[in-house]
Parts: sequence; C-alpha cells; structure tokens
Amino acid sequence: MALHHLESGEIATLANQGGDALSMQTVALFKSRQLEVIRLRLPLGKAMPMHQVPGEITVQCLEGAIDFETPEGVRRLQAGQLLFLRGGVPHGLCAVEDASVLLTIVLAP
Amino acid sequence: MALHHLESGEIATLANQGGDALSMQTVALFKSRQLEVIRLRLPLGKAMPMHQVPGEITVQCLEGAIDFETPEGVRRLQAGQLLFLRGGVPHGLCAVEDASVLLTIVLAP
Repeated sequence: MALHHLESGEIATLANQGGDALSMQTVALFKSRQLEVIRLRLPLGKAMPMHQVPGEITVQCLEGAIDFETPEGVRRLQAGQLLFLRGGVPHGLCAVEDASVLLTIVLAP
Repeated sequence: MALHHLESGEIATLANQGGDALSMQTVALFKSRQLEVIRLRLPLGKAMPMHQVPGEITVQCLEGAIDFETPEGVRRLQAGQLLFLRGGVPHGLCAVEDASVLLTIVLAP
C-alpha cells in the first residue's frame, strides 16, 4: 500500500500510459471523512471472497475484466464499465483477466 | 439526460469502444441515498462555472483533458487521472480538449 494519500485537490494517475493492468500496485488513493478510494491490482485468478460493507460502493473496471458476484448472481465487468451497489449487499470478485479496478466506498453512515 | 438510472448491481459502460470523447451524452448514471454519479460530455471550451457542493467528490477524466479550478489554482486533469475534493470547496472546470468526465458526489451529510 502506498504511504502517500491524496490531499483534497490533488491528482492521482489511475493507470500508466501504455502500461498493462499489473503495472501499478494496489494503492489506497485516499480515505477521507466520507469516501475511501482504492485502486486494486488483480492478476488473473485473484479473488476477493464474499464480504460486505455498510456504505454504498461503485466498482469500476479500469483494465482487464472481473466477475463480480452478489447473491443475485455473477456479472462480468469489462474495462470501462462501472457497477453500483447498495450498502450491506454481500459481494465478491474474481479476475478473469489481469485486471485493475477502482473501488469507491462511502464511509458516511 | 438519460431516463434510466442504474439499479444496485447493474452495470454501465462509461465510454464507447473506439468512440471519441463526445460519442456519449451527459448522463446521470444513478442517484441513490449516499451517492450521485454523473458522466459529463464536455466539448472543447465547455465550462462549468465555479460552484460548490456540500459533500466530498471525485472527478475522473475518462477522455480528453480538463482544467479544474479551485481557490488554490488550476490543475490539468488528463484522461486516466482522478482528483479528490473535500465538501464545500468551490470549483469549476473547462474542457481544454473534447473530454468526458466521471463525477462522483457524496450526498450523505
């Protein structure tokens, strides 16, 4: 995890130009009062088991592809696609290609 | 603006494959209890004057480039870059190329 967190007004680069999905490490871009934003590096086959968080989230596939699982089933998220999930909904994911994913999590109750 | 809003668990495509920055219209992807996510279409020269919102926001440049202004100055946001801003900070933007931008706004107090 990176040591530096974004300050308000600061810019982060989400993917290296011409890089591949694994060219950047998993990094917590920032965690503020209301929001936490994390960039996940997910090599092919890497999985996050089912879990849940209280707040609403968005999951954006930046590179590659992942299968995103909820109790309603599995949906494939490709690069350039975004998914919204209400708080408290169990979810897990698995990289079906080398992938990078941007997670945005609402921390406010 | 689109008539359809994302349901929890539903997927949105943020950019057309092989499209340009102007190939998709501005669309409110969803507005839920805690989050509002909007995809903005910003032709070269299009500006949003200084304004502020109570909640924290992230601004992600999907395509093209914008100049993002706060009282601290102007920062250029290129495709693939993301900026975080605390709630209540005045901000405005101007497209310096044909651009598309993903705005994520926390609605919770």
